[in-house]
Amino acid sequence: MKAIIHVGLKPGVLDPQGRAIARSLSDLGYDEVSDARQGKVIELDMSGTDKDAAEARVKEMCEKLLANTVIESYRITIED
Amino acid sequence: MKAIIHVGLKPGVLDPQGRAIARSLSDLGYDEVSDARQGKVIELDMSGTDKDAAEARVKEMCEKLLANTVIESYRITIED
Repeated sequence: MKAIIHVGLKPGVLDPQGRAIARSLSDLGYDEVSDARQGKVIELDMSGTDKDAAEARVKEMCEKLLANTVIESYRITIED
Repeated sequence: MKAIIHVGLKPGVLDPQGRAIARSLSDLGYDEVSDARQGKVIELDMSGTDKDAAEARVKEMCEKLLANTVIESYRITIED
């Protein structure tokens, strides 16, 4: 089983990496890009077959370790 | 229009961040996690309405700036 977790900054939180990307793209002539944001994606290989149980465990992992919930939000997808 | 780009290390490339995540989760008692990999996701806000043209431009951006194609692979999704 695979868990895919998207972690991104909450709206309104300053995103310096995204800013740097937007500026660099503009410098390279890609003027159609008005804004950029960068987040991370974490893929976990997991044992077990119960998707609901896995999702609950991954949510716990996010709260404890994988996301800083003060400034970041996360989204979990469980795949076979 | 929105372009979402997933950038991840190619298979076989050492992923120290993923290793650190897997080890930390194991230390926290999440023994069901056998492996972890970390990648990044970049969201671009773009002007224009031609999806195919946008995808071609984003591919160019990836090759030039957003991904290190020696060690990273990328996947582009264009959304309205």
